[in-house]
Amino acid sequence: MSLNPDLENRLRDLLGARLSVTAADRGEHARSESLHSAPPPDAVVWPETADEVAQILAACNETGTPVIPWGTGTSLEGHALAYTGGVTLDLMRMDRIVEVRAGDMQVTVQPGVTREALNTELRATGLFFPVDPGANASLGGMAATRASGTTAVRYGTMRDNVLALEVVLADGRIIRTGTRAAKSSAGYDLTGLFVGAEGTLGVITELTLRLHGQPEEVAAAVCAFDTLDHAVECVTATIQSGIPMARIEFVDAATARAFNLHSGASLPEKPHLMVEFHGSPVSVREDAESFGALAGEFGGQGFDWASSTEDRARLWRMRHGAYHASFVLRPGARGIITDVCVPMSELPAAVTAAAADIEAEGLLGPIVGHVGDGNFHTLLLVDPENADEIARAKQVATRMAERAIAVGGTISGEHGIGVGKRGLMAAQHGAGWQVMGDIKAALDPRNILNPGKLVADRN
Amino acid sequence: MSLNPDLENRLRDLLGARLSVTAADRGEHARSESLHSAPPPDAVVWPETADEVAQILAACNETGTPVIPWGTGTSLEGHALAYTGGVTLDLMRMDRIVEVRAGDMQVTVQPGVTREALNTELRATGLFFPVDPGANASLGGMAATRASGTTAVRYGTMRDNVLALEVVLADGRIIRTGTRAAKSSAGYDLTGLFVGAEGTLGVITELTLRLHGQPEEVAAAVCAFDTLDHAVECVTATIQSGIPMARIEFVDAATARAFNLHSGASLPEKPHLMVEFHGSPVSVREDAESFGALAGEFGGQGFDWASSTEDRARLWRMRHGAYHASFVLRPGARGIITDVCVPMSELPAAVTAAAADIEAEGLLGPIVGHVGDGNFHTLLLVDPENADEIARAKQVATRMAERAIAVGGTISGEHGIGVGKRGLMAAQHGAGWQVMGDIKAALDPRNILNPGKLVADRN
Ligand SMILES: Cc1cc2nc3c(=O)[nH]c(=O)nc-3n(C[C@H](O)[C@H](O)[C@H](O)COP(=O)(O)OP(=O)(O)OC[C@H]3O[C@@H](n4cnc5c(N)ncnc54)[C@H](O)[C@@H]3O)c2cc1C
Ligand SMILES: Cc1cc2nc3c(=O)[nH]c(=O)nc-3n(C[C@H](O)[C@H](O)[C@H](O)COP(=O)(O)OP(=O)(O)OC[C@H]3O[C@@H](n4cnc5c(N)ncnc54)[C@H](O)[C@@H]3O)c2cc1C
Repeated sequence: MSLNPDLENRLRDLLGARLSVTAADRGEHARSESLHSAPPPDAVVWPETADEVAQILAACNETGTPVIPWGTGTSLEGHALAYTGGVTLDLMRMDRIVEVRAGDMQVTVQPGVTREALNTELRATGLFFPVDPGANASLGGMAATRASGTTAVRYGTMRDNVLALEVVLADGRIIRTGTRAAKSSAGYDLTGLFVGAEGTLGVITELTLRLHGQPEEVAAAVCAFDTLDHAVECVTATIQSGIPMARIEFVDAATARAFNLHSGASLPEKPHLMVEFHGSPVSVREDAESFGALAGEFGGQGFDWASSTEDRARLWRMRHGAYHASFVLRPGARGIITDVCVPMSELPAAVTAAAADIEAEGLLGPIVGHVGDGNFHTLLLVDPENADEIARAKQVATRMAERAIAVGGTISGEHGIGVGKRGLMAAQHGAGWQVMGDIKAALDPRNILNPGKLVADRN
Repeated sequence: MSLNPDLENRLRDLLGARLSVTAADRGEHARSESLHSAPPPDAVVWPETADEVAQILAACNETGTPVIPWGTGTSLEGHALAYTGGVTLDLMRMDRIVEVRAGDMQVTVQPGVTREALNTELRATGLFFPVDPGANASLGGMAATRASGTTAVRYGTMRDNVLALEVVLADGRIIRTGTRAAKSSAGYDLTGLFVGAEGTLGVITELTLRLHGQPEEVAAAVCAFDTLDHAVECVTATIQSGIPMARIEFVDAATARAFNLHSGASLPEKPHLMVEFHGSPVSVREDAESFGALAGEFGGQGFDWASSTEDRARLWRMRHGAYHASFVLRPGARGIITDVCVPMSELPAAVTAAAADIEAEGLLGPIVGHVGDGNFHTLLLVDPENADEIARAKQVATRMAERAIAVGGTISGEHGIGVGKRGLMAAQHGAGWQVMGDIKAALDPRNILNPGKLVADRN
C-alpha cells in the first residue's frame, strides 16, 4: 500500500521532516519482540503537540486512513503493527514531564516519557511511580495496554495509577478525562475506558499519574523451593495471610538456568520466589519474618537477602530481563508468550496444569509470573521455521486461556489483546465483546484507530 | 402519564403481583431525601431474576418506555426519580448473597443486598466490605453511583472494589463484565464503565466485590480544633505525611452542635476531626502517635479515644447520621447538598472559601467531609417555601463547584450527577460530556434507561 497523495501532502505541510516514508523509518516501526509480524506502515509521523495529533487524526479520518499509535513498540501481541497499512503515529517526541506536584503526589507527563526517565526525574522528590513492565516502555503505551509488573500486587496497575488523560479522538477533537481529585462520581469513567483501549478509541497526549512515597525501608530476598507446586502454594498462602508484599515473583527452574547462563547468576536450578518488602523498619522486619516462616512451611530454602540498593537493583534487573535471558535456552527461537491471570486460590492448579501441558507437548516453555496477582507467563520457545511446533504451542496457549476462563480468570493479566489474543475475546466476554465493538463504532465510526486490534472486525 | 396497556399486560403476565400501579407503591418510589422531587412513576416492578429484568427491559425497549432502576432510593441528586414517567425497577427483592469466596477475598451478591446486611453475613469470616455511605444503601445503587464513604481514604471507592458485574442492557441482552482475577488487560474496562453510570447504560443484576481482612487492631478518636482552617490544614499535612489513615473525617462547629442536640453527644462546639487506625497492634500505635503529634502542631485538643467496639460503633453511627442530625439546626428545612472533591493541597482553601460564601449569603450550611480524599459536603438548609433563599443556596453550590473545577477537582466526589448536577457537566468535562452521550446512544439507542440523568438530553 502507499499513502493517499493528498493526505501525504497535507501531513508534509504540517510536519515537514517529521513525516517519513523511507524504508528505514517504516521498517523501524514494523519490529516486534514476539512472533507477530506485519508489513511496515505506509508512513511514520512524529507529532510534538496534541494539536498536531489532532490535525493528523482529522486528516486521516477524512481519508479513512488507519492510524497506529506507537510508544516504544515493546507490546507483545502485535498491538502496534500496521496490518492494514496506514500511518504509524510515533509519540516518542512528546517526552516532556509537564509538572510534578509533590504535595498532591501527582505528576503530569506527555505520553513518550518512559517509566525509567520518570523515576530518574522523581528521585530527589522522595516519590516514585511504581508500575514496571519488564521493558522500559512509554507511559502512553503502558496506559494503552493497562500494563502492570512486579509491584502491582502492592501499588496496583495502570488502571489504578492513571488519574486523568488528555485524549485526541478519531475526528481530531481533544478531550480531557478525569480530574486531579482522589476520586470522582461525575459521569462515566472515561479515563478508565481509554486505559487499556490499546489506541483503538483515541490517542493519549497527556497523562496525570498517581505517585507513591519512596518507602522508608526496603528489603528483598530470593529463595528456592524443591518443586514448582510448593513455590506457588507458598504464594497463595502468603497472599491469603495478608502479608503486604511489595513484590512476589515466581521463576521456574528453567528460568533460573537461563539467569545462570545469560546473567551470570549462580542460582540452584530450582523454582524460586523473589520477594520485596516496603515500609517502616519495624513493619518490614515483621513482614519479612512472617513471610520467612510461611516459606519455611513450604520448604523454602537458601534465603539470599539483597541488603544494598545495588544488590536489589541487580536482582530486579535480572527478573526484568527474564524474557530476553530465556532465549539462551534455545538460540534462534522466537517466543509465544502467554499471560493468563486467575483468582489466587486457582493459581497452583493453573501453573501446574500449564507446566504439565508444555511437557506433554514436548515444548520448551519457561514460566515466570507476577504471582501475587495470580498472573503468570509461559514463554513458549519455538523454531520459527517449524509450523507444526508453532501450531502445537498455540494450542497449549489456547488451552491455558480456556482453563483460566473456566475458573473465573482472564486471558490477559497485563499484556493486552492486540491481534494475538483477539480469537479468545468471544470466549471470555460473550456478548460483552460486541458491546466493546459498539463503543468502538460510536467513538471511531470510520474505524481508523488501530484497526484490527482488540475488537471484532466490522462488517 | 399512564402505562401503555399492551406493555402493562405483558408485564402483568410476567410478574403477576410484582407489578403495581397503586398510588401507594408509586408514591413510595417518588420519595427523595433531598430537595429534588418528581411525579411518581407509572408503575413499579419487583423482578427476582436477571432473566425477568431482561424481559422487562426488552418489553420497555419495544415501546420506548423509561425504566428507572431503584435500590434503596437514598441517592441525593434525584437519580432514581421518574421525571418522564415510566417503570421503576425496584431491585430490592434480588437480595441474595450468592457466594462468599473467603480464600480469594471476594463475594458475589445480588444488587438488592445492603452494605449492612453484607457485613453482618461476613462477620464470622474475618473479612469485611469497607465502602460505607451514610445510608444503608443497596450494593447495586452504590455501584451505580460510584459511592464511597469514610473508609475510601484507605480502601478505595466502589470503583476500586467492584471486580465483575452481570448487567442487563437496554435491549434485554445479559452480559458479564470483568473477571474474578485481581487484574485484567483483556479489552475495554466495561465494569468501570457501568460503575458510576447511574443506571443509564444497563441494570446491574449481580456484583462480585473485593473484600478486605478485618484489621487485627483498631483505634479511633475524636479531637477538636479552634478554627476550621487548623482542622483542615491538619488533614492535608496528615495525608501528605503518608500516615495510612483508615478514616479521617471533618465535622464543623455547627455539626458538632447538631450532634449534641440530636444525638446526645457532648462535644465542644468547635470543628473536629474523627479518625481511625487499622493494622497490627504495633503499627496502630505508631500511626496514632504520628497523627497525635501532627494534630498537636495544629492545636488539636481534647483527644477522646474510643477504645471499645461499642464506643467506636457509636462514634461512626453519629458521623453517619450527620445528614439527618443537621436538620435539628433548622426544623422544617430541606437540604441542598454539595459534594465537591479537590486535590489535597487545595482542600484548606476550598473549605475556607465555601464557609465564607455561605456566611456572606447569610445561609445555614453545616460542613462535613471525607477530607482524607479531599471531599467535603455542605448541607445548605433552606426553607422549601423561600424561592429566593433556594436560589441563593444554589448559587453558592454552583460557585463551590466552579472553584473545584478551577483547581483540578470535581463537582461530585461520591454522590453523582442525577438531575441535580447535570447543569455543571459541560463545565467540568467540555467535549468529554458529548462523548458520554455518544456512549449512551450506542448502548441505549431508544434512551429508555433512566432518561434525563447524567448525560445531555438527546435532540
Ligand atoms: C522484555 C519485556 C517484558 C515485558 N514485561 C511486561 C510486564 O511485566 N508487564 C506488562 O504489562 N507488560 C510487559 N511487557 C509488554 C510491554 O512492555 C507493555 O505492553 C508496554 O506497556 C508497552 O508500552 P510501549 O510504550 O512499548 O507501547 P507500544 O508497544 O508502542 O504500544 C502498545 C499499544 O498501545 C498503543 N499506544 C501506544 N502509545 C499510545 C498513546 N499515546 N495513545 C494511545 N495508544 C497508544 C499502541 O497503538 C499499541 O496498541 C513486556 C515486554 C517486553 C518486551
Ligand atoms: C444520610 C445519607 C448519607 C449519605 N452518605 C453518603 C456517603 O457518605 N457517600 C456516598 O457515596 N453517598 C452517600 N449518600 C448517597 C446515597 O446513599 C448513595 O448514592 C447510595 O450509593 C445510593 O444507593 P441506593 O441503593 O439508595 O440507590 P438509589 O438511590 O436507589 O439509586 C441510585 C442510582 O443508581 C441507580 N441504580 C440503583 N440500583 C441499580 C442497579 N442495580 N443497576 C443499575 N442502576 C441502579 C438508580 O437508577 C439511580 O440512578 C448518602 C445519602 C443519605 C441519605
